[in-house]
Amino acid sequence: MRVFSFYERAARAFRDHPSLSKVLVVCTVSGGGLAAFSDSKPFQIAHADAGQGDCKKKKVVVLGTGWATTSFLKNLNNPNYDVQVVSPRNYFAFTPLLPSVTNGTVEARSIVEPIRTIVRKKPYVKFEEAECYKIDEKAKKVYCRSSQDTNLAGQEEFTLDYDILVVAIGARPNTFNTPGVEEHAHFLKEVEDAQKLRRSVIDCFERASLPSVSEEEKKKILHFVVVGGGPTGVEFAAEIHDFATEDIAKLYPTVKDFVQITLLEAGDHILNMFDKRITAFAEEKFQRDGINVKTGSMVVKLSDTGISTKERTTGEVSTIPYGMVLWSTGIGTRPVIMNFMKQIGQANRRVLATDEWLRVENCDNVYALGDCATINQRKVMADISAIFRKADKNDTGKLNLKEFHEVMGDICERYPQVDIYLKKNKMKSIADLLKKAQDPNSQSIEIDIEKFKKALAEVDSQMKNLPATAQVAAQQGEYLAKCFNRMEQCEMFPEGPLRMRGEGRHRFHPFRYRHLGQFAPLGGEQTAAELYDWVFYGYSSQWLWYSVYASKLISWRTRVLVVSDWIRRFIFGRDSSRI
Amino acid sequence: MRVFSFYERAARAFRDHPSLSKVLVVCTVSGGGLAAFSDSKPFQIAHADAGQGDCKKKKVVVLGTGWATTSFLKNLNNPNYDVQVVSPRNYFAFTPLLPSVTNGTVEARSIVEPIRTIVRKKPYVKFEEAECYKIDEKAKKVYCRSSQDTNLAGQEEFTLDYDILVVAIGARPNTFNTPGVEEHAHFLKEVEDAQKLRRSVIDCFERASLPSVSEEEKKKILHFVVVGGGPTGVEFAAEIHDFATEDIAKLYPTVKDFVQITLLEAGDHILNMFDKRITAFAEEKFQRDGINVKTGSMVVKLSDTGISTKERTTGEVSTIPYGMVLWSTGIGTRPVIMNFMKQIGQANRRVLATDEWLRVENCDNVYALGDCATINQRKVMADISAIFRKADKNDTGKLNLKEFHEVMGDICERYPQVDIYLKKNKMKSIADLLKKAQDPNSQSIEIDIEKFKKALAEVDSQMKNLPATAQVAAQQGEYLAKCFNRMEQCEMFPEGPLRMRGEGRHRFHPFRYRHLGQFAPLGGEQTAAELYDWVFYGYSSQWLWYSVYASKLISWRTRVLVVSDWIRRFIFGRDSSRI
Repeated sequence: MRVFSFYERAARAFRDHPSLSKVLVVCTVSGGGLAAFSDSKPFQIAHADAGQGDCKKKKVVVLGTGWATTSFLKNLNNPNYDVQVVSPRNYFAFTPLLPSVTNGTVEARSIVEPIRTIVRKKPYVKFEEAECYKIDEKAKKVYCRSSQDTNLAGQEEFTLDYDILVVAIGARPNTFNTPGVEEHAHFLKEVEDAQKLRRSVIDCFERASLPSVSEEEKKKILHFVVVGGGPTGVEFAAEIHDFATEDIAKLYPTVKDFVQITLLEAGDHILNMFDKRITAFAEEKFQRDGINVKTGSMVVKLSDTGISTKERTTGEVSTIPYGMVLWSTGIGTRPVIMNFMKQIGQANRRVLATDEWLRVENCDNVYALGDCATINQRKVMADISAIFRKADKNDTGKLNLKEFHEVMGDICERYPQVDIYLKKNKMKSIADLLKKAQDPNSQSIEIDIEKFKKALAEVDSQMKNLPATAQVAAQQGEYLAKCFNRMEQCEMFPEGPLRMRGEGRHRFHPFRYRHLGQFAPLGGEQTAAELYDWVFYGYSSQWLWYSVYASKLISWRTRVLVVSDWIRRFIFGRDSSRI
Repeated sequence: MRVFSFYERAARAFRDHPSLSKVLVVCTVSGGGLAAFSDSKPFQIAHADAGQGDCKKKKVVVLGTGWATTSFLKNLNNPNYDVQVVSPRNYFAFTPLLPSVTNGTVEARSIVEPIRTIVRKKPYVKFEEAECYKIDEKAKKVYCRSSQDTNLAGQEEFTLDYDILVVAIGARPNTFNTPGVEEHAHFLKEVEDAQKLRRSVIDCFERASLPSVSEEEKKKILHFVVVGGGPTGVEFAAEIHDFATEDIAKLYPTVKDFVQITLLEAGDHILNMFDKRITAFAEEKFQRDGINVKTGSMVVKLSDTGISTKERTTGEVSTIPYGMVLWSTGIGTRPVIMNFMKQIGQANRRVLATDEWLRVENCDNVYALGDCATINQRKVMADISAIFRKADKNDTGKLNLKEFHEVMGDICERYPQVDIYLKKNKMKSIADLLKKAQDPNSQSIEIDIEKFKKALAEVDSQMKNLPATAQVAAQQGEYLAKCFNRMEQCEMFPEGPLRMRGEGRHRFHPFRYRHLGQFAPLGGEQTAAELYDWVFYGYSSQWLWYSVYASKLISWRTRVLVVSDWIRRFIFGRDSSRI
């Protein structure tokens, strides 16, 4: 009914003050007060302070400056919001190139872009360089403090009120509480990590070159260990190998033969999220390059003298000396998110759960995207009765094909696992599913709720969490910005699927991830790539990688810089100065 | 007589083993044992271990990787030395561009070049990334330790023996023991300093933009104070001003009006080592730009809340709040040099004293160049009797013009102050000096020792220490390398001036500094420059500055990078990411 009252009010306002209509539309869309979280809750933005008669802009606080936020800010185009971005990092970093920074193939500064530059033409977006250390969901406040390490008097702390909160602060490395990892290992999440890693690599070579170092120690110092066979770990191992063979050999001739690179992976294969052909190609190439790939090997301890691993099959524990360890095994939750999850009854989860519209569950006007959140997909089986009722318009207790066709699109949109299940079972439409549950000889398809349940019983097995990648975060940011841009329009003309457990339609289409592909540079100008359904590996895909990455870079400035870094590296090699 | 015995030995060796002659020449040049330091001591390199019969290469240990060392290594071309370079910094930095790094006009990595790359084609040069923490002059050893801050087990320490030691480790900032400076001020000696300074400048702007910061505090945080009106301080002040007006104004619109820059100078003028016209131009430009130049103002204390200054004339002390302080008032001595000076009886000096051939006084086979040393010029008056005797070949006790002409060149070379004195008094030659001491009506010039002393009495007033600049260090490095390159040749055919207090000639010409000019970029594309005897200021000299600096950069790589940084800055502006 809210929609009608909105229409009425908007119409009245338009009559009285034609020039105000746009503003009024923005400010009245949300209409009512709090609604308990449910499928039937409309997509709403918080209304202006109810006590005040006049109409204010909605205050949107955005936490983070990673892929999700940057994509959100770049696509946001609605001056009816007052946006405040809070992050301890005043720039966006093109993280897929971080492994390249660790060996000087690309410079750190080439892959970053200040957030203030990105939003320069959007006066309704403000930036605060600070860390949010607490979210108070009830009071709709975030607590922030300056993250600057200064020796001046005074510590800057402040709180921000919000009408809408967008949480996109990413994750931190996951050490799985392995002893010694925090103290001794390197990570590769931030630009600072990459810079530190670069210095450490040079350090190892310089240290191994000192006259007091024995051959035994040289071997130890130049043993680079990478834990985790994902794209980051694999690319770093490849970069180190290239650096050692292409540049180090000339500059550190006395120690070049002591370099050893080991890649430890707990699973059976490296790059296990890639196509099997790529995995095989990468493992073969690494073997040719002399990179020691050890699968099925879990790290159990890290000390200042060695790294201890346990064989998954035999349970045998062995310790090997190392010079440097990169830990890239996955992501963990930041403390501020854990605290927030406790407040909203998600304490037992690993990351924030949102619905398909990126709204945090059990929360009002809080969105979460990127690595700090995951979409908690609605199960078909949880809604099966509601779906049946929706389809069974005549209320006959039986469903025929015609009735079903009318809601089929909505079901597939609302429950994407249905589509995946059909594709996997080579079915053309849900009708095929229904046929399966029906007597194969029967001509007319007419099934009851029990048969319907049986037909869809296995569909939910296809539900899968989205990977914690830049691609997902960027698409979520873009999606959310587009929703915010058309908030008013879609309140009037909802474009989403039918509400199964309520009336009308959802305001927006749910978020849907399109996987465009992934790359894993393997060193020596070779890259493995998946692009849509194609698989590439070898020299040619290096150029594909360059061109895709260059095109994805955030600004013309970063594009020019990264490309000139690549050219420079071809001409002058990598720089080994320890700065 | 040493020279003759050398000839004999060399001739014999050549007859017996023609192929060995080169090596033997190297190893026998030094001939005798230790000689007490005096003017009559020949320029000698240490001889190989006397106990051993066979002939080894001389071990040269070089401390430092600054201007002096880099210039030395680039010009050294004598494979008969075994050179070991020790420095905690594995790269050379083009320091005149450091102020440009602080605001992102040029990238840190563009102005550095790894030492290993510089000496790549000289297999007789080795590099160790370590810090020399003690020189043992008696045992001819240096004690070094790795300066790496690692969390791996083991601290690398080692000693190196040397036959010849070249000390060129530069200086550290001089705080004049002003309380609070170490804790609160920034310096600008190293690349790390420039990077830290860049982050701090951005920090100030970010901090001032936070919502919790009052206007009062904004003013404080954005008050940039530069202590010291030398080229570094002036350029940094100009860079900050440019950054604030050109880039900050767009990105931090809310705080741009709070920026204030103060330049404190204890003397009467900024840039006091420059021509007066330049000083006046710079002071006027700064006034126009709104940079507050305060001369005659000494800093007496720095705390976390303010900087206290004392007026030189009135003695009044006042304290002003600040956001960031750059301290660039001059240089101090490093602890390892202080310890070394104690060992060799120079404890009461500020820096190492060397003779005109860059040999450390009271030391055997130790050279010092760059900011850690100063040439202790020999006074004419100290040698006046010896000079007279040398000139008075007939031993008549009287000097005539003809006699004098024969040694005039040598005197001028050995005592450069004579030349300067003559020029200053507009005299053409020493003969004019003698004339002055003589009866002006007398036709023949014939003077005794007393009149001779009188004539030269004021000459020593023209002795001046060389400034602690990159230019001096680079010229010293080149000079020393050329001496090392021709060590054998010049032992046979000495090219230096007559020894006044000994027999024969000095092996080499003494070091003579040629001042090529100096630059002070003043911001806004304006630069003040002195080149030879010309003075430039204004827009045109900016291009002069660019071209001279670009041509002086150490390698093609750095040249390309710095020029591309300049181009980039013109196109994209400076980057304000805090990395």
